[in-house]
Amino acid sequence: MDKRGVTFIIFGATGDLAKRYLFPAIYTLLKEKKIEKCAVVGVARRPMNVQQLLNPSQEFIPHLNLSIWKQLEQSTVYHQLQFDAAQDYQKLALVLQNLEQKHSLFGNRILYLATLPQHFETITRNLASSKIATQTKQNWNRLVYEKPFGENLKSAQKINQCISRVFDESQVYRMDHYLGKELVGNISLVRFTNRILEPLWNKNHLESIQIILSEKLGLEGRGEFYDKSGALKDVVQSHMLQMLALIGMESPSKLTGDYIRNEKIKVLRKIKVKDVFMGQYDGFTREEGVQPTSKTETFAALKLELDNPRWKGVPFFLKTGKYLDKRETSIHLKFKMVECLLTKSCPTDSNYLTIRIQPNEGILFEMNAKVPGETYQVMPVKMELSQPDLNGPKMPDAYEHLLWQVIQGDQSVFVRNDEIEAAWKVIDEIKKKKLPVYAYAQGSKGPKELDEWSWKNKVRWRG
Amino acid sequence: MDKRGVTFIIFGATGDLAKRYLFPAIYTLLKEKKIEKCAVVGVARRPMNVQQLLNPSQEFIPHLNLSIWKQLEQSTVYHQLQFDAAQDYQKLALVLQNLEQKHSLFGNRILYLATLPQHFETITRNLASSKIATQTKQNWNRLVYEKPFGENLKSAQKINQCISRVFDESQVYRMDHYLGKELVGNISLVRFTNRILEPLWNKNHLESIQIILSEKLGLEGRGEFYDKSGALKDVVQSHMLQMLALIGMESPSKLTGDYIRNEKIKVLRKIKVKDVFMGQYDGFTREEGVQPTSKTETFAALKLELDNPRWKGVPFFLKTGKYLDKRETSIHLKFKMVECLLTKSCPTDSNYLTIRIQPNEGILFEMNAKVPGETYQVMPVKMELSQPDLNGPKMPDAYEHLLWQVIQGDQSVFVRNDEIEAAWKVIDEIKKKKLPVYAYAQGSKGPKELDEWSWKNKVRWRG
Repeated sequence: MDKRGVTFIIFGATGDLAKRYLFPAIYTLLKEKKIEKCAVVGVARRPMNVQQLLNPSQEFIPHLNLSIWKQLEQSTVYHQLQFDAAQDYQKLALVLQNLEQKHSLFGNRILYLATLPQHFETITRNLASSKIATQTKQNWNRLVYEKPFGENLKSAQKINQCISRVFDESQVYRMDHYLGKELVGNISLVRFTNRILEPLWNKNHLESIQIILSEKLGLEGRGEFYDKSGALKDVVQSHMLQMLALIGMESPSKLTGDYIRNEKIKVLRKIKVKDVFMGQYDGFTREEGVQPTSKTETFAALKLELDNPRWKGVPFFLKTGKYLDKRETSIHLKFKMVECLLTKSCPTDSNYLTIRIQPNEGILFEMNAKVPGETYQVMPVKMELSQPDLNGPKMPDAYEHLLWQVIQGDQSVFVRNDEIEAAWKVIDEIKKKKLPVYAYAQGSKGPKELDEWSWKNKVRWRG
Repeated sequence: MDKRGVTFIIFGATGDLAKRYLFPAIYTLLKEKKIEKCAVVGVARRPMNVQQLLNPSQEFIPHLNLSIWKQLEQSTVYHQLQFDAAQDYQKLALVLQNLEQKHSLFGNRILYLATLPQHFETITRNLASSKIATQTKQNWNRLVYEKPFGENLKSAQKINQCISRVFDESQVYRMDHYLGKELVGNISLVRFTNRILEPLWNKNHLESIQIILSEKLGLEGRGEFYDKSGALKDVVQSHMLQMLALIGMESPSKLTGDYIRNEKIKVLRKIKVKDVFMGQYDGFTREEGVQPTSKTETFAALKLELDNPRWKGVPFFLKTGKYLDKRETSIHLKFKMVECLLTKSCPTDSNYLTIRIQPNEGILFEMNAKVPGETYQVMPVKMELSQPDLNGPKMPDAYEHLLWQVIQGDQSVFVRNDEIEAAWKVIDEIKKKKLPVYAYAQGSKGPKELDEWSWKNKVRWRG
């Protein structure tokens, strides 16, 4: 429980992210009494009142508690601001002072930049010059940058340089909401706290790894943004390379903060791109905001390798796409085959460890056991961590969990400047290749041509 | 399916074993059409007719199928015989000839010695001289010796010598019905067909092993026999050392027949007895057939070690007893602790692999996973092989399974002469020690003094 209270300043407060995730997350932090009191300043360019700002969030809150909602409403103000207008920040500084006085807050501030990355530098500079985010010994000010952080290596470097000129990296929280998901958070804990896993986690025992992020949905009104981005920039650069880094990293000295980030960056810097396949769903070029001649990929499959002693020669296969036949994020570790000691029947497939990120969070082993009633025949069987073990009575949403980590000042589940840049470097390298983009039907498993690519790269997809 | 048919000759046919297990097993082999036809000759000392012989078995057959029962009854004869009367075996030879002619059987015979071991030599010699078990190129004759096989190393050696003078070891099946149990049969298959287990199965990753066989029942009318035997001879020499051998053995060239027995014998010969604790339940000396001054143990706990490169320094703890608080047979592999990389919380216990033999057959992992909603706190969780995976629609009873293995001529789940002798050698060594026997209450967990012994030997019992 945080007793001193927090002031949330949300830039881009009228956007989809604030509506769906940020206001509901603050509501829940209040409801669960993780924070006792707070003030919220919604900041955006167009005129609006508090009810117009907050009410659309209600549909994303199950079993709305009206007294908590009232508390949130009474703690919230809306502040109209042009991102590049210095005087608007001066006014914001005064609003903040009055508000914090009114609510007896100590000036602990979270400045959440829920805008497109082209505004990050402008807002950062203005926050610095208006001293809105200038912490003292008595209080903290923390800046949260929503994903995507830039659109390539060069733009990410520019933003990082801008930030580091005026703020300290210890104040900076780069969001990747996948790092707030229960099972992603579980990866390194399960790896490093279990003797039955840690000794097997290397090229001696693992044959390959698959990281799969399949979406059933399409653009959801983000056509213009997505056409400039594509699958590689939208999810590979962030979620998928972060999961790869957690799977691939060496044992950190401690499982906290910068110890983990120090190990993740080493992995990201050792990624070798071996092969890439791209696809685009039929009808993408007719979507609102998308160029009619667009070659943007909405599907990608990658074969990567890590050039280090632990992983040399073990392929990491990544696959993602929009408008596929299902929604699923999962990681599959395929073990090498055992020498078959049986005469009548042999294991037909490897052992697998599967980490299901969503939906149906879970950890599964696939292994072999005896066919009941037979003496020496085996069959594949599954072992699963039961849901009640993995899911508490109330599983926090990723954003609620991550905001709570910002309040506690724990940067471990946020992405550091060097990680962001290393990941962009991988994406830039692929983008330079100008690969063909194969068409696929909406609701399918991706382009037909993927079969040949998968056969050539010896991968049998598990999702 | 065996189409040529089998003749079962059961010595000790009026005993408890035949009634409870052997006749029901033959009935089931017929019902499941594993054998098309058979003849059964019940052999014992007192006069009796077929109905008196078979009918008591009906209560051990669920959902009795009357037409199968009729088939069994019509295939069965009773033959009264004194074990040492040569002329009775001559008559038996004629009975068998007539019966096999009548039922169009080819003379494939299973001679099941379900008697006390003191009769094994007499029956074996008489079977040889009467040529009842003398196989030809056209048919097989197989001898099954029920447990216990002797009562110490010397008597077991004498029986083995007697057998080997007149029969070939390939005809000899020494019973240990635990080897017919589903999960015992699973031990070596699970070990050697799974890459996620095999590399961890040694002193580098395992801290200790527990093999537990707890009985809720008492003597069940076997007072006289049990008083001469005790827990060590009754279950440690057989079931428990066999399980230890399966857990401890090196990888065989093939997971069949003598390859496994060749590896098991190496383990049995490397057993070092480190410490032993014994108990006797209150009231044992007042049981029918038990000497009033008896010091026979009804409870035993052992610390053993295997003096070989794989297991050096890893204790194998065995614990068994009668009249305990529960019925349970299970094996627990305790992994070494991991170095704790967490600052806020550390794993509180090791990983475990548990093999539950009975009841509720199952394979379980106990490992650590993240506390839901917390960033870096772990808690113990369980992964379990689901019952439908391990249990078929109809799980065969151990005796049915083992009789079927005899028919198929597969000796792998029977105990070889050298294994029997190596196991007795261990028991003889302990028996020489004349250890104290501590009292315990019926329905308890064993003697109170066990706590100190367990503390001294650093074992926290898992069952």
